[in-house]
Amino acid sequence: MDTSLETRCLSETDFAVPVEDRWFEDYVTGSSYEWGYVSFTEEAIIDFARVYDPQTMHVDPVAARATPFGGLIASGWHTAAAGSRVFVDHFVTRVASMASPGMDELRWALPVRPGDTLSVRAEITSTRVTTSDPSRGLVHTTIEMLNQDRRIVASMKAMNFFRLRTPAT
Amino acid sequence: MDTSLETRCLSETDFAVPVEDRWFEDYVTGSSYEWGYVSFTEEAIIDFARVYDPQTMHVDPVAARATPFGGLIASGWHTAAAGSRVFVDHFVTRVASMASPGMDELRWALPVRPGDTLSVRAEITSTRVTTSDPSRGLVHTTIEMLNQDRRIVASMKAMNFFRLRTPAT
Repeated sequence: MDTSLETRCLSETDFAVPVEDRWFEDYVTGSSYEWGYVSFTEEAIIDFARVYDPQTMHVDPVAARATPFGGLIASGWHTAAAGSRVFVDHFVTRVASMASPGMDELRWALPVRPGDTLSVRAEITSTRVTTSDPSRGLVHTTIEMLNQDRRIVASMKAMNFFRLRTPAT
Repeated sequence: MDTSLETRCLSETDFAVPVEDRWFEDYVTGSSYEWGYVSFTEEAIIDFARVYDPQTMHVDPVAARATPFGGLIASGWHTAAAGSRVFVDHFVTRVASMASPGMDELRWALPVRPGDTLSVRAEITSTRVTTSDPSRGLVHTTIEMLNQDRRIVASMKAMNFFRLRTPAT
């Protein structure tokens, strides 16, 4: 993956407001969006895994054939990070983000192989203003990464803190 | 982080057998290990985040000062991937790994800043032979990443499938 990643909205609708003017109130439970595409080359898979996850099936295309995967597959961390990029480009507000406390149920359901092209689907599952600080809210989102056969290869449940456009007084 | 990462055991004991001869039976509930160190430079933080998580606090040291973090911090995915590297180097068997189905409760508790040096602590919380395939077992491990002040900056609950050295017949 190179840094000049250009992805676009794939769903029928996108957010009504751009990330440059998006606040907690713009994240609505039940909304679902999809963006893409990110592709995985053999070189990128190996480059990432050499640093962060140097297991045979991620760094050695020949030896990987003898593994249960039958060939080179991307590190699950590489897949998650690539999904993060799409999520950051299209979902996360530029002006009201107060970071993420974490992720739940990160799952690597199917191998990602060289040449695979993924899209990222995000569904907002709940939102609530935090009681400790009513100027911000917590948004829960289920993120799924789908391959070119529309099969889910990875998923996770994200949490993000966003500031309110108009905090309750 | 460069690819010539050299880390060592920091706990009083390490596994009794090396990763080259480690099987499901060698992962024992209640065992706890620690390895280190991985350091984060400003350059590495920015390089990772430009590709995978280009938010202001991860890519722009000057603009990051105006964020709630008061300066550049590593992407949570960068922190998790660096922890993965240590985990793969020291924990995961080279001969009996059948990959990971996922991670639970990935948490980014504290910012990781340029110059921070982390260690990785792993405690095996449960192990069981899988009923669907008695030649393999599932190992649950709590992974914590600690900074130079011994504070937990990130944590996750890992799952790994490993083959048995001697499957029950």
